[in-house]
This record gives sequence, C-alpha cells and structure tokens, in this order.
Amino acid sequence: MAVHTDYIEVETGGKRSVVDLSQQLASIASKSGVSDGLLTVFVPGSTAALTTVEYEPGLVKDIDAFLERLLPYSEHYAHHETWHDDNGAAHLQAALLGPSLTIPIVGGELTLGTWQQPVLIDCDTRPRRRRLVVQILY
Amino acid sequence: MAVHTDYIEVETGGKRSVVDLSQQLASIASKSGVSDGLLTVFVPGSTAALTTVEYEPGLVKDIDAFLERLLPYSEHYAHHETWHDDNGAAHLQAALLGPSLTIPIVGGELTLGTWQQPVLIDCDTRPRRRRLVVQILY
Amino acid sequence: MAVHTDYIEVETGGKRSVVDLSQQLASIASKSGVSDGLLTVFVPGSTAALTTVEYEPGLVKDIDAFLERLLPYSEHYAHHETWHDDNGAAHLQAALLGPSLTIPIVGGELTLGTWQQPVLIDCDTRPRRRRLVVQILY
Repeated sequence: MAVHTDYIEVETGGKRSVVDLSQQLASIASKSGVSDGLLTVFVPGSTAALTTVEYEPGLVKDIDAFLERLLPYSEHYAHHETWHDDNGAAHLQAALLGPSLTIPIVGGELTLGTWQQPVLIDCDTRPRRRRLVVQILY
Repeated sequence: MAVHTDYIEVETGGKRSVVDLSQQLASIASKSGVSDGLLTVFVPGSTAALTTVEYEPGLVKDIDAFLERLLPYSEHYAHHETWHDDNGAAHLQAALLGPSLTIPIVGGELTLGTWQQPVLIDCDTRPRRRRLVVQILY
Repeated sequence: MAVHTDYIEVETGGKRSVVDLSQQLASIASKSGVSDGLLTVFVPGSTAALTTVEYEPGLVKDIDAFLERLLPYSEHYAHHETWHDDNGAAHLQAALLGPSLTIPIVGGELTLGTWQQPVLIDCDTRPRRRRLVVQILY
C-alpha cells in the first residue's frame, strides 16, 4: 500500500462558519495521481467538525440556526466553570457532528454527488486557524 | 495494498426510509475474499446518511419520530428560498448523521454486533434511487 | 499494504459514561510501529458511540445533560414494545453519534489536537463490557 498525506490550511470566522473544501480536496486527490483509494479528512481540535452538505447560502443559514437552537452559545455549560471558557456549545456541536470524513476515490475522482460538498463547520466562538489532515490510502 | 470497489443500488421511499444493508455488505465482503481490512460505505448525495442501528420496526419508527421532532419537514428553511425546494429538513438531518460509515473486517467477517445493522437513512421528501459506493482496503 | 488489528476492552457504567481512549489508542499506534497510516476505532453494539471531545469533567456533564434533553431515557419509545427493553433512547443517541472514528497517523503520532480526546460514549441504561476493534492500515 501507499499513504499520501497532505494538509489544508483554513482561516475561519468561527461561529459556525461553513467552509467548502471541494476544490482543495479535488486538487489533493488529483495531485496524488491515485485512481482508486480512500480519502480521509480529519480536523485536529475539538470545536470544529466535518460533514457533507449542499453548499449554498440558504443551507449555511439553516445549519447556523439549527445548531443555535439545539445548543445555544449563550446558555450555561459546565465546561465554562472548568476553564472560564465561553465555548461549551461549540464543543458539543462539534462532538455531535464528528471530526472525520471519509470519501472513496474511484477512477481518479471523489465519489461525491453533484450537489454534495465536503465542508468544515467551525463551531468555535472566535476566528480560528485550522490545519486539516488529508490522507489518501491506495 | 489493494482496493476493492463495489456498489449497492437501493430504491427508497424517501421520508426517512431506513434500509438494512447487512446482507449486501456481508456479500460484498465475502466475495472480495478479504480476511483483514477496512470496509467503507459512502452515499453520494446530500439528503441521505449512513449509520448503524438495531434494525427492528420499533426503532425505525423511533428514528422517524425523533428526526421529525428535531427538524420538521413542514418548517420553513432558508434552503427553500434558494431552489424552491421543500427538503431543507432532509439536508440538515443528513448532514448531522453523516454520509460515510467504516467497519473493520476481521477473519473475513464485518465486526458488527449481533443486534447492530448498517443502514441507509434516506431523509429526502420523495422516493429516490441511491447508488452507494463500497470500498474495501486490505 | 498491511493491516494491524487490535482490541480495547472497556468496562463502562452505561448511562452515557464517557471513556477516554487516548492512552490505549496511542499505545496501539506506538506498538504497531506505523509511521504513516490510518487508525479506525469501531464499537460493535448499537447503544454506544465514538467521537472526540475535550475530556474534562465539565464537558462530561454537558454531554450527559444535552443527550438527556434531546432524548430522555424516561420517554416512551416504540423500541420498548418490541423487546420490553428500556433503552430506546440509548439506541437513538448512539445512531446519531455514530459507531466509528478514523484518525490519521503521521510521523508515528495520532494527529489529534492538544485538547481533543477520542472517547467512547456508552449510552446504554446499564453497565456494559465493550470490546472495541482498532485497525491500522498503512
């Protein structure tokens, strides 16, 4: 086997910024020259998450509204007592969505749907710099 | 290494149909002849998701009732303004559950629990044909 | 390629016990001698789940309170009618969080953030013994 490891650097605004990773992942898959294999993206850190979504402005608003309703930033969380942090909601949102995403590559292409984009959702309460790990096994 | 890629075609009724993939995945794992490796299932499209659950009629009802309470189909979503679609809830439900599932194969068998079935949950508002990508790395 | 398979045995108290897997996963990664590869953890069974979280007592309480609010143990679930079980909530919580977690290994180390711990969340209503499958592909 072979393992190809790469990175994506992203500056986010936090507050459930949704960042479309389509072009960067397609570029990494293409540069790797891999025909058939498995691509994994992982976000180090516990206040951001990865999933897929149709990336369009309406759904970006809907994701924000849904996560705020489910876990409001302004509520009190026990986490705030531990470090005097204000991002308890961000931790729970990220743990629920999950830190990793795996997508098969077939014939040199990610097998995503036409209206399906791989995204980073940064739930933290402030802007963050994220360095995602991308690994292709083939 | 080697990569074995296969597909599962499923007709769903949409509306949070839960489709048990146990037999088809076991058959793909068996046909591959792989003793130890990693099986990944991925659903192209942004209104369906993969997870595991005890597949029995009670839980199928519970999943439907829970997702409807969390994200009702009949609510207004900003996504509806973008395309005049009616499936904003489906997009959010699928993004929350996630599009991929990975299961180790050991001794030629998927390491699932006895009461644990890999399932597709099709959240879309209408019947859909889904073509799942299954990849085994070994 | 090569596949390295290992196991982690955990006794949990159920009721959304959160078990930090950091040391056991780091030890398995280290013993494998793998420099670059992909580690997957999978929990057989449909009432427990895997994700990452900052493992500290405040967030452990927050996870418990959030999941109880979302899916209370004491509510009625159709699953209870099937087997006269009492753990319908546990099944839904686990299906939502998901049974697998994948983390890249780079330079012999799991690429986790400093405040990010891989955890098992056992949602069942009683103490359980869990045997997690850990697989490294490289």
